[in-house]
Amino acid sequence: MDPRLKKYLESTLKEVSIDCTIFGFHAGELKVLLLRWKGTDSWSLPGGRIFLEESANEAAVRILRERTGLQEIFLQQFYTFGAANRYKNFSPDELIKTLELTFGEDFFDEKLMKRNISIGYMALVEFEQVVATPDWYTDECRWWEISAVPTLLFDHNDMIETALKALRQQLSYQPIGYNLLPEKFTMPELQRLYETILDKQLDRRNFQKLMLSYDILEKLPEKRTGGAFKAPFLYKFDKEKYDRAIQEGITFKV
Amino acid sequence: MDPRLKKYLESTLKEVSIDCTIFGFHAGELKVLLLRWKGTDSWSLPGGRIFLEESANEAAVRILRERTGLQEIFLQQFYTFGAANRYKNFSPDELIKTLELTFGEDFFDEKLMKRNISIGYMALVEFEQVVATPDWYTDECRWWEISAVPTLLFDHNDMIETALKALRQQLSYQPIGYNLLPEKFTMPELQRLYETILDKQLDRRNFQKLMLSYDILEKLPEKRTGGAFKAPFLYKFDKEKYDRAIQEGITFKV
Repeated sequence: MDPRLKKYLESTLKEVSIDCTIFGFHAGELKVLLLRWKGTDSWSLPGGRIFLEESANEAAVRILRERTGLQEIFLQQFYTFGAANRYKNFSPDELIKTLELTFGEDFFDEKLMKRNISIGYMALVEFEQVVATPDWYTDECRWWEISAVPTLLFDHNDMIETALKALRQQLSYQPIGYNLLPEKFTMPELQRLYETILDKQLDRRNFQKLMLSYDILEKLPEKRTGGAFKAPFLYKFDKEKYDRAIQEGITFKV
Repeated sequence: MDPRLKKYLESTLKEVSIDCTIFGFHAGELKVLLLRWKGTDSWSLPGGRIFLEESANEAAVRILRERTGLQEIFLQQFYTFGAANRYKNFSPDELIKTLELTFGEDFFDEKLMKRNISIGYMALVEFEQVVATPDWYTDECRWWEISAVPTLLFDHNDMIETALKALRQQLSYQPIGYNLLPEKFTMPELQRLYETILDKQLDRRNFQKLMLSYDILEKLPEKRTGGAFKAPFLYKFDKEKYDRAIQEGITFKV
């Protein structure tokens, strides 16, 4: 076995690991970052093990930084995947083949296919700032549109579904958009972000009224120009109020 | 070592376990179920290990059933506690003494104090229906008022705090109260439940308006009688609409 792999397995927890669902927003589409395993056509979410002296949250921050170059960004747990069998998307034979192609034939007996629980973390990142970087067991790291994600290794399709559900719930108690939109944006752009995450159309007037009621937006004197239609107002987040709303929530304010 | 304990340790996961924050509501107070460890004055949340062939969720359901006699009730993950040191509330000496009192002196070398990650589950239960039952390593299982919870073993005070925070956020996207209130209740009783969880006073009119906007309450023809004041209307949850609101959320409905 590759001595690097051997050392990694010995210095990390065995029964619990981490997977990261990293969302970006670009050209009106929600995207997710995936890795292609070495020598295969099999894709998975970015993830990794937790070093013995490292907290789960520290491991997630490290993995996010290693795959995207980003740090100090919005990253949170959303669910821990603890099914007794998390390898359901591929048959055992297919999965063994993938693992042998990536890790070599002597890997398989050692560790994998044992019971493993994964802590799911979710990040919302600025698409343009990400330097997508494969790790040592993958050949390729790139963005996929949510609607085009292929069948992934392990239970990673479930993970993306569950992360999306958590993100939708979060829209009800926290503002969103700071990492996903450019600094200045129009109300229709903000609405498009919400509609993409919620996967449904929202009423324009109700949406605007709701957003303004959160008291986190600053209306700018300038307008977006250059379009064929009436130039829309530009907004930016009032970062202080935005951060307070993240802490205190946007419902039950009184 | 007790052969029962030995068998339990061998047939369960070693690096990851479960703890349950079980909330009940009684006499206008939010309460939490705690266990006192055998031969000690040390308290903890109910919890346990995950059997090798059991999912994390199944383990949580089992633990809840064993401690309360209840099943098929609202139980959910809220956070996974993965700090590198989760034993901070007591000094190592105090903790070792507690564990030796409970498990005997030969236990300590074997297993505990190793790195362990805990998946936190939260349940909301009908106070009156719970039959609080200690497990084989505890002498006592009983309700504590949230405000009177003592210093607990491990990081269990943090767990209760985090569960409360998750519960508060949940009020923004899901209805609450079905398992916590009697079948028929008044609007002030529902408001008292929300105020207890949120730990703040809410405006009576705004609260009533918000609750009615969720369209999950059925106003009953009868009124609560017997008090010194004007008899308040009684409500009950429309269970079908309530369950739909749990699924679909109560914000962004249009």
